[in-house]
Amino acid sequence: MPHYNPLVEGLSPPPVPSVLAWAKAYDGARGPLIDLSQAVPGYPAHPDMLKWLGDAAASPAYAGYGAIEGEAELRQAYAEHVAALYGAAVTAENIHITSGCNQAFTAAAVAIAGAGDTVLMTNPYYFNQETTLAMLGINVELAPCDAGAGFLPEIETIASALRPGVRALALVSPNNPTGAVYPPDLIQRIYELCRRNDSWLILDETYRDFLPEAHVAPHRLLQAKEWQEGFVGLYSFSKSFCIPGHRLGAITGGSKLVAQVAKVMDNLQICAPRAPQAAVAKALPALADWRLANRTEIAARASALRDVFSRLPQWKLKAIGAYFAYIRHPFPDIDSQFVAEKLAKLAGIVCLPGDYFGEGQESYLRFAFANADVATIRMLEARLAGFTLPGI
Amino acid sequence: MPHYNPLVEGLSPPPVPSVLAWAKAYDGARGPLIDLSQAVPGYPAHPDMLKWLGDAAASPAYAGYGAIEGEAELRQAYAEHVAALYGAAVTAENIHITSGCNQAFTAAAVAIAGAGDTVLMTNPYYFNQETTLAMLGINVELAPCDAGAGFLPEIETIASALRPGVRALALVSPNNPTGAVYPPDLIQRIYELCRRNDSWLILDETYRDFLPEAHVAPHRLLQAKEWQEGFVGLYSFSKSFCIPGHRLGAITGGSKLVAQVAKVMDNLQICAPRAPQAAVAKALPALADWRLANRTEIAARASALRDVFSRLPQWKLKAIGAYFAYIRHPFPDIDSQFVAEKLAKLAGIVCLPGDYFGEGQESYLRFAFANADVATIRMLEARLAGFTLPGI
Repeated sequence: MPHYNPLVEGLSPPPVPSVLAWAKAYDGARGPLIDLSQAVPGYPAHPDMLKWLGDAAASPAYAGYGAIEGEAELRQAYAEHVAALYGAAVTAENIHITSGCNQAFTAAAVAIAGAGDTVLMTNPYYFNQETTLAMLGINVELAPCDAGAGFLPEIETIASALRPGVRALALVSPNNPTGAVYPPDLIQRIYELCRRNDSWLILDETYRDFLPEAHVAPHRLLQAKEWQEGFVGLYSFSKSFCIPGHRLGAITGGSKLVAQVAKVMDNLQICAPRAPQAAVAKALPALADWRLANRTEIAARASALRDVFSRLPQWKLKAIGAYFAYIRHPFPDIDSQFVAEKLAKLAGIVCLPGDYFGEGQESYLRFAFANADVATIRMLEARLAGFTLPGI
Repeated sequence: MPHYNPLVEGLSPPPVPSVLAWAKAYDGARGPLIDLSQAVPGYPAHPDMLKWLGDAAASPAYAGYGAIEGEAELRQAYAEHVAALYGAAVTAENIHITSGCNQAFTAAAVAIAGAGDTVLMTNPYYFNQETTLAMLGINVELAPCDAGAGFLPEIETIASALRPGVRALALVSPNNPTGAVYPPDLIQRIYELCRRNDSWLILDETYRDFLPEAHVAPHRLLQAKEWQEGFVGLYSFSKSFCIPGHRLGAITGGSKLVAQVAKVMDNLQICAPRAPQAAVAKALPALADWRLANRTEIAARASALRDVFSRLPQWKLKAIGAYFAYIRHPFPDIDSQFVAEKLAKLAGIVCLPGDYFGEGQESYLRFAFANADVATIRMLEARLAGFTLPGI
């Protein structure tokens, strides 16, 4: 029998479906299931968004092939959005639309690194970024982020990990899984270290729209004259517009990087689906107020979660940010996968085990708290307070 | 400045946009532009198809994340379609939905081969398959297909090219670029050679719905008991339903292969866009008669093209099939890229140069004749009869 690629065969099955399988085994005894696993805002897409999606999909105008780099109207609208947010001279030529942010990472990674090259990530990491690099034969090196430092990367750690030849450093801020929001000054200093080492900084900012302040630039990198020569920004429209099923993301980079990414994307899928691009091009300016209201709502959810954990001394809220909270469970020496499975099956709380996100994470659980409204978050208190592991 | 991946940097820019740029330089002097470049059926999607696409895209039911392997309804509908066409026991578990057929090839290739492995292709080849393997560092070896043999692969050539360690043989039938339709017996014998060598056979059948006979299985491979252990089928919904902008394709394989592909797809983009999947699941059975009528129309276009070239003795129709014709131009020693550029700019006929499809193809042009209706195809005669290259 012919062989599979051992780099793919060696990967675990995708983690989210296995967690959802635990959820199915919950019998409802503690009340409705609380799904804090895959990040999906617990409110629906705006009715106008759905209408625009429907209109574009029904139109013959978007049935044919589109431009590899993305629809001109969305590249323009997103460039204006980025330019305004970061106070930067970003134009449509700096934007490549992708089919979601996992694809944005894959396309950027392939454009930058090949099998045998090295990319640096933090530990913990977003698991799909690690498995993407692993399946491509790209070496992954890890820079540890300590709970004591709020899971922020430390300058000294990054500086010593950025050896010559490291092609890129991949960061996620606001972080997945910890939620940690990297301060602009920290991002700036890390970027300068990357520049000095001729390494790209790939910065995934999928969750930036859930930061409490709408008009504060998450970093200043794009204001520097030569940002195109070292920075790659990743973004997803899925979370902000509540449309992950339509698969839409974006890369922000120099026009030379965009040209390399276009070659990769032509091979990967020619172009991102067109109708959602047309719809999001409308929604970006039109639904700005709606997204602003969502920020306020998410901030209220974060506040409710903090409040809940302040009364659960056994459970430690170690980090919280724009979308995720990273929580230390109260069972020393018990693996987070076991704890998460029992939480799902017995308490109807579905979250992701820290193990999925890197080395030494067995004490942690990732709660995608922004999935749930405040009333639901308050229900966590009673369920967690009395939670015990059977046979332990 | 940080580096790009040399395997990507070394690729030429995507070919189709450069050809469309030549088309833009045409001044209309010879009548309307005839675009026979990228394969796009020259009739619109069925109105019901557009309606279903719009309905699904406007529905909150498809806004969230979906199953990695694809929507259950589409996997089931497509499995039934494949089972009926090939007279085979294919079930939903054998289907993985992708975002177009380029992605189906990429996902299958990564599941099977990594950097340094070898995949065998024919020459000429479909260029995106070659560039996909090249950018992943997978070695490509070529089995030449001669014009004298109607561009069909020859058994002896394949047998000697299938050295130990060749991970897979990638074939396209009906072929892109030549149009050649591989007879079932030939496919069967090649498959047996692959099995004996422990190589996968990856068979891209994107254009099979344009074959003249609707109820004749293009091959018998799926009828063999052990097909799951050596066969990977690729397909695109783009051409048959005239919806390439919605990006939808499929892989048919063993359930073990599907499990490996799911890991790759989770990294590449989590899942294919959902709304088009729901729409195509309806359309597959419902628009069977419409697709049948399209076959007849395409057959009429093929017949018109044969007729046109029978009166153009300088231009040699070397192969013609379900969608493409492969034509030898009348300018010995002149590169097909130059000829195609002048044909676009001076005669308003847009086609792809043979050079784009492999080694030694400079005498050929690919005409995606099925793009154009019979009346348009007839216009080719006058334009080609008097065509000369300036300065030659």
